[in-house]
Amino acid sequence: MARITREELQAISGDLPWVAQLHLVVEELGEGTARTRLPASADHSRPGGTISGPAMMTLADYGFYVALLGAIGPVALAVTTNLSINFLRKPPLLDLIGEARVIKLGKRLAYGEVLLFSLGHSDDPVAHATLTYSIPPDRPPLD
Amino acid sequence: MARITREELQAISGDLPWVAQLHLVVEELGEGTARTRLPASADHSRPGGTISGPAMMTLADYGFYVALLGAIGPVALAVTTNLSINFLRKPPLLDLIGEARVIKLGKRLAYGEVLLFSLGHSDDPVAHATLTYSIPPDRPPLD
Amino acid sequence: MARITREELQAISGDLPWVAQLHLVVEELGEGTARTRLPASADHSRPGGTISGPAMMTLADYGFYVALLGAIGPVALAVTTNLSINFLRKPPLLDLIGEARVIKLGKRLAYGEVLLFSLGHSDDPVAHATLTYSIPPDRPPLD
Amino acid sequence: MARITREELQAISGDLPWVAQLHLVVEELGEGTARTRLPASADHSRPGGTISGPAMMTLADYGFYVALLGAIGPVALAVTTNLSINFLRKPPLLDLIGEARVIKLGKRLAYGEVLLFSLGHSDDPVAHATLTYSIPPDRPPLD
Repeated sequence: MARITREELQAISGDLPWVAQLHLVVEELGEGTARTRLPASADHSRPGGTISGPAMMTLADYGFYVALLGAIGPVALAVTTNLSINFLRKPPLLDLIGEARVIKLGKRLAYGEVLLFSLGHSDDPVAHATLTYSIPPDRPPLD
Repeated sequence: MARITREELQAISGDLPWVAQLHLVVEELGEGTARTRLPASADHSRPGGTISGPAMMTLADYGFYVALLGAIGPVALAVTTNLSINFLRKPPLLDLIGEARVIKLGKRLAYGEVLLFSLGHSDDPVAHATLTYSIPPDRPPLD
Repeated sequence: MARITREELQAISGDLPWVAQLHLVVEELGEGTARTRLPASADHSRPGGTISGPAMMTLADYGFYVALLGAIGPVALAVTTNLSINFLRKPPLLDLIGEARVIKLGKRLAYGEVLLFSLGHSDDPVAHATLTYSIPPDRPPLD
Repeated sequence: MARITREELQAISGDLPWVAQLHLVVEELGEGTARTRLPASADHSRPGGTISGPAMMTLADYGFYVALLGAIGPVALAVTTNLSINFLRKPPLLDLIGEARVIKLGKRLAYGEVLLFSLGHSDDPVAHATLTYSIPPDRPPLD
């Protein structure tokens, strides 16, 4: 079960401008897993009817952040130290889903991956990202 | 000398929503090099007075795109296939500079790096990214 | 089913010095998946009773190569264009297993991942790698 | 000036099997920089007269290790946490040079890059790697 509630998550990240601008949605929340969604919008479309790279990177980064908070609780100041993303297929201008999971949770660093899928279009991922997050040392102890 | 003019670049990328929203500026443009700037703004600030990861990734991606077009000319549909970014230091909420350069320019793929600096704050980079771009096969021949 | 036989694989890669020196073993072979093994040896041990990074990288690279040939058949000259590996836990000096899978198979590029496990020690991976391979354009057509 | 002598470096790494097998040589050693060399050998050649990926990855990893010890002194147990390498051009079977530099030196993590060149062949790099190393907390204090 996730160590953070949707209310705590909303309090931490709901007002972040890049989360609000992209209308990112948390669909599912587990202990080290998350399913997030980027609704289709002309604001992040690219010529050719596809989705911009920056919007996809933001979804990957936010999706992993949510999965990580699902594992460690409401630690607002966890920050990305590395994000590596491979764009595999040009997504159509449909909602994108990010399936994130924590692979390794250490005291100071967490590592994991996010697969991005085009909702209702194909089972093949459109992008794959790996991320390392730094966890601040003074985070409140887990229950 | 750059193989694209500022006017051509503006025509290709000036209206992209994420470029416009962040007010990204091209400061210098060479053949395979570029210096771009992300003006400081509350829109991409993060609690603690620092700059959001997504805004820094967008600057890195755009900076390399500009450097690449400086090398190959106005090829709008060049797309990122990999972006890997390492966040090295927490930048203060000042303008960020991206120094991009193409390391390898092939027929179909280009590879390079971007160093991000906090303007007027320190000579130490706040982030380092490497990128691979795919160049469409039907691009117009270079003069 | 794999598009390459063990005999073909042996003919292509069995004599490669780094495969032979590390005594790398193909345990399972599928269409775009492979399970390979690095037997424990003092030759790639590191002070502290752990396995050297280069040996782990070689297992990851070879494991993905085998998975890729399982998907495209005996194309000896497929080559790595990117390998990114994250070392997650210090493995004890036991056999290492690489579980590789192709995530995206294109005409010219393939992308996938490898999880490395310490055999008989833990279900948690000791390393995770992502790889991009370039597939030569003149490869023989698949049956 | 480097914080480690060649004698200390030899004592720490000279007997590592993968360093010895590849006959890796330290050509230059600075504070956070290093120039290392991989002599050409049939042992790490690949069909087509080129150098194997694993040998190039080992040179990159060792090169950055040397540069890092040049910055922090004789800390044997610094270990790689991430290595990402892009292979840019097929090198001929000549000696390879690794030019490594530390970009960020933190208390617990160091980050940097290595460019690999084919000696006497071209000024264009054949590969580019970025690395993150973990520095053990109990390392002896620097003078």
